Amino acid sequence: MKALKDKILEEGEVIGNDIVKVDGFLNHQIDVVLLQAMGKAFKERFSDKKIHKILTIEASGIGIAVMAALEFQVPVVFAKKDQPSNVGNEVYDASVFSFTKNKKYTICVSKKYIKPGENILVIDDFLANGAAANGLIDIVRQGGANVAGLGIAIEKGFQSGGKELREKGIKVESLAIIEGISSNEIIFRTL
Amino acid sequence: MKALKDKILEEGEVIGNDIVKVDGFLNHQIDVVLLQAMGKAFKERFSDKKIHKILTIEASGIGIAVMAALEFQVPVVFAKKDQPSNVGNEVYDASVFSFTKNKKYTICVSKKYIKPGENILVIDDFLANGAAANGLIDIVRQGGANVAGLGIAIEKGFQSGGKELREKGIKVESLAIIEGISSNEIIFRTL
Repeated sequence: MKALKDKILEEGEVIGNDIVKVDGFLNHQIDVVLLQAMGKAFKERFSDKKIHKILTIEASGIGIAVMAALEFQVPVVFAKKDQPSNVGNEVYDASVFSFTKNKKYTICVSKKYIKPGENILVIDDFLANGAAANGLIDIVRQGGANVAGLGIAIEKGFQSGGKELREKGIKVESLAIIEGISSNEIIFRTL
Repeated sequence: MKALKDKILEEGEVIGNDIVKVDGFLNHQIDVVLLQAMGKAFKERFSDKKIHKILTIEASGIGIAVMAALEFQVPVVFAKKDQPSNVGNEVYDASVFSFTKNKKYTICVSKKYIKPGENILVIDDFLANGAAANGLIDIVRQGGANVAGLGIAIEKGFQSGGKELREKGIKVESLAIIEGISSNEIIFRTL
């Protein structure tokens, strides 16, 4: 998606060889015009699927998921990190290791909001090792629902998450795939 | 806002005398059609103000803020809870006591995203004692920006936050004000 790639090049902040911070338009401040365009792009890329619900994870995934859900006209469910006291005990959960924060945490979704047979589109801001995505997919399946696909804003193509998920037969659509970072320059995969 | 009040009556879950859980359409699962209507309602209620930016707090505020921002065509900034390692040290922060979770936490916003002179609309899902709202207002002012107003989805009118903020001269617009909960029944303030 050209608008997203352009924005990453203009405002993304490269740290070392593997981190691109997008706090200026996605992860802290949000450009809602771009976000809306991203929502429309996900709708196009998954137009062949009947989607019943979108599942994401707090906090950065919520904005993207909401905008995509507006296009699909379906509800969003966002997984909570660590089990908040007021969610209740009836949850599906999964353990996720965050390489960014170097710690393990639990994500959970109330059983009320994943129903058997639903086609659920999983959406998240980043895909790197696939830890969060695999946790969300695990939760969808615990609920007896189907993973309709995985919609990602920015995939780190030089990490293995996307490749492994595609090899498992999951339709992964990333709006921008970073192939690598070289001398502070971001190189995108050209499809 | 009738659609929101109706939804609270239909799906809100009353716990004790002071908690209304809205996990079915706002705080865990999100009804995006309702969310879009809420965004439009905020646009109407603050149409007299020039708004440069919307500030909210992760995670439940993000969806509402994004939808309102789409109406205003301005960016959203969401305050982070506790200082994540990758936000950088250049932040405005405020201490917030959560009565729901009975603990104090810090919220922070990068100094890059609050600029002197900006008119900032603060949006959040709930207003009870006003702890989170006051923290966000504090951050806006630390940045030399102006609080254009406070837009709230659900105000607990039987707690003091809204009254105190209005007495300080802040324009507070709540889409639904719960006056009280009696015998498991939610009573709204009629304006």
